Amino acid sequence: MNTIITLTTDFGLTDEYVGVMKGVILAHNPAVHIVDLTHYIRPQNISQAAFAIGASYRYFPKGSIHVVVVDPGVGSKRRIILLRADGHLFIAPDNGVLSLVHSAKTEDIFEITNEDYFLKPVSNTFHGRDIMAPAAAHLAGGLDPAQLGPRLEADQLRTLPITAAQHDKDLKSVLGSVVTTDHFGNLITNIPWELLARLPGKPAEENLLFTIRATKIAGLKTAYNEAADGILLAIIGSRGFVEICANMDSAARILEAGPGDEVRVSINEEL
Amino acid sequence: MNTIITLTTDFGLTDEYVGVMKGVILAHNPAVHIVDLTHYIRPQNISQAAFAIGASYRYFPKGSIHVVVVDPGVGSKRRIILLRADGHLFIAPDNGVLSLVHSAKTEDIFEITNEDYFLKPVSNTFHGRDIMAPAAAHLAGGLDPAQLGPRLEADQLRTLPITAAQHDKDLKSVLGSVVTTDHFGNLITNIPWELLARLPGKPAEENLLFTIRATKIAGLKTAYNEAADGILLAIIGSRGFVEICANMDSAARILEAGPGDEVRVSINEEL
Amino acid sequence: MNTIITLTTDFGLTDEYVGVMKGVILAHNPAVHIVDLTHYIRPQNISQAAFAIGASYRYFPKGSIHVVVVDPGVGSKRRIILLRADGHLFIAPDNGVLSLVHSAKTEDIFEITNEDYFLKPVSNTFHGRDIMAPAAAHLAGGLDPAQLGPRLEADQLRTLPITAAQHDKDLKSVLGSVVTTDHFGNLITNIPWELLARLPGKPAEENLLFTIRATKIAGLKTAYNEAADGILLAIIGSRGFVEICANMDSAARILEAGPGDEVRVSINEEL
Repeated sequence: MNTIITLTTDFGLTDEYVGVMKGVILAHNPAVHIVDLTHYIRPQNISQAAFAIGASYRYFPKGSIHVVVVDPGVGSKRRIILLRADGHLFIAPDNGVLSLVHSAKTEDIFEITNEDYFLKPVSNTFHGRDIMAPAAAHLAGGLDPAQLGPRLEADQLRTLPITAAQHDKDLKSVLGSVVTTDHFGNLITNIPWELLARLPGKPAEENLLFTIRATKIAGLKTAYNEAADGILLAIIGSRGFVEICANMDSAARILEAGPGDEVRVSINEEL
Repeated sequence: MNTIITLTTDFGLTDEYVGVMKGVILAHNPAVHIVDLTHYIRPQNISQAAFAIGASYRYFPKGSIHVVVVDPGVGSKRRIILLRADGHLFIAPDNGVLSLVHSAKTEDIFEITNEDYFLKPVSNTFHGRDIMAPAAAHLAGGLDPAQLGPRLEADQLRTLPITAAQHDKDLKSVLGSVVTTDHFGNLITNIPWELLARLPGKPAEENLLFTIRATKIAGLKTAYNEAADGILLAIIGSRGFVEICANMDSAARILEAGPGDEVRVSINEEL
Repeated sequence: MNTIITLTTDFGLTDEYVGVMKGVILAHNPAVHIVDLTHYIRPQNISQAAFAIGASYRYFPKGSIHVVVVDPGVGSKRRIILLRADGHLFIAPDNGVLSLVHSAKTEDIFEITNEDYFLKPVSNTFHGRDIMAPAAAHLAGGLDPAQLGPRLEADQLRTLPITAAQHDKDLKSVLGSVVTTDHFGNLITNIPWELLARLPGKPAEENLLFTIRATKIAGLKTAYNEAADGILLAIIGSRGFVEICANMDSAARILEAGPGDEVRVSINEEL
């Protein structure tokens, strides 16, 4: 079966850059299946890309190759790496964009340095096209990763300081923050549902209280339309994290909130 | 040959949601050809999606599977259905989004309930990923639709009250409305060319008069550039309906018009 | 191996037009690999499309078929052409959009007139769907181009007056202009790096001075991050032309500059 190569970039779809990367991949290996994850990572936003690939790769079959090109350091001395983890391959600049896939499950890491597998001439500004796309195509064709360059140790990689949500000292609430806003204006947090379950008294879903930008939202819902149109609600989103939403509307617009805003989950004392 | 699965959603392309659905499909069945119809249905706009799939599916080969995920009721008790019509398969929430494909040509309808074919755990917010994508992949692999759940009757489906254009009582004009505005600012109406042909006196194309927002446009053109740059014109668009356009410009911007605006076609008495 | 068909249009991705073209192609020939180059050419902007396809096609394998639908004259008497150049096939309206692939390397040109290969009925407004998509699908299936219509001579084609950058009379500077602005706000010029090399005194990269909108930028860099965040720099972009950029920022926004703005490269007399 054809190997899948996914692409995650901040290139947008207005220019021909994404199409050209696909041309390079297909010119090297026509027997691949290319899937766009997203090309609308905000320009140079490494942490947004880290969350996108971290939340997504496991839905693809093992053996898939994921190319992540959010690369403000292109043309400088930053490394380009190949990381093998959890049965998937990842190709990206070594700038922290693989922070959420690099973990105990990491099997191998290589620096991609072997110019035999580069597109010539190599530009200073588009290593997605000149280095990462051909590497992915060759790997899909069965190339041994060790042919691409020297092995790196796990602690040689740059990783981002990703903030995790945590319990308050008194364990009476969970403090997290908004990680990203999606197309619907849903505010996606870094609070996994597991943390809520450990609040005192095995709180029922209706006893939870969510606070964001001084607005309080009572109860955890299981469907958007459990709230009336335009009304804010909290829900466990499809990534398994708390999301602040508005039924048929945009919570981001209503709350004027976005990445970095604090979200607190506590027990509703008024019940 | 590989089965085609088309995707129509309101997810946009900024988040990883569409890519993840493709991953789930390909993980279940790598031998499919996935085509994006559009992911820019306006959020929760069921009627826009109904028009998009209704106008498009017949250009794909028979046997194609069309997945439509515009699903404001996700997580509530709304059904997910599989509909077979005109040689095509459609998977969607039962919210009216298949109103323009569900007709006398409908062959079978099933409710998708068989959890054996779901992605586990099933989230409350993303049934496109957890139920519809795997169902499409299994059907593409030859699964008998009846395996997915119980059969429904045609009158059990929710349908939208789609307004059709119609002749005035005196048959001297046709009254319709703008259904959608496209990327070029063309205003696409619900007035099929057949209705124009039945106006009195077998009107020649140059005798027709189009009125929208108190602006009168004389004659039906056959090419945009029969009008000067920036000048409004009426034309039969590629869907077979009247469109109000402006050569090299946006009629929506010039007229400040959009979905719901009334369009009247009459005989030009001044000629 | 499956033939590649690339699509370049000004349709955007909000409507179903691109998806429908893909349906038509796959209905005629399921054994093709369709790649989007871009669908965000500005509406009716023929020269932008000419640059996009001219800069991109060579990254695809020989034998690829490139369909370019930027077609303000659709429905009028403008020709639709098939051009074979440099081992690639191009299908487009004859409006100059192939100006940067039509050259000494052009092998054959045909006018596409044979209605046997059209989708019926042919609309007045969507020849991408009704004529160009089926032609591409048939060619991918091995159809002899001569079957599509009569042969044209090279001088029968419409071409755009593309302005090339050039040396000043005294050879002391190069005068060019901005051709397009990309998603990152990089200003891409028509000044190829070869022209810089011919400035007097074999100028070192640090001796070059770039002037745009009365702003002077000293030196040619090789990586964006050789400038501090938000600082303007000049670089040779991935197309091989001078680009005016800002590290981690948008040069277009900072300079309020865009297509048509003059860019001069001279020797920095202050060094």
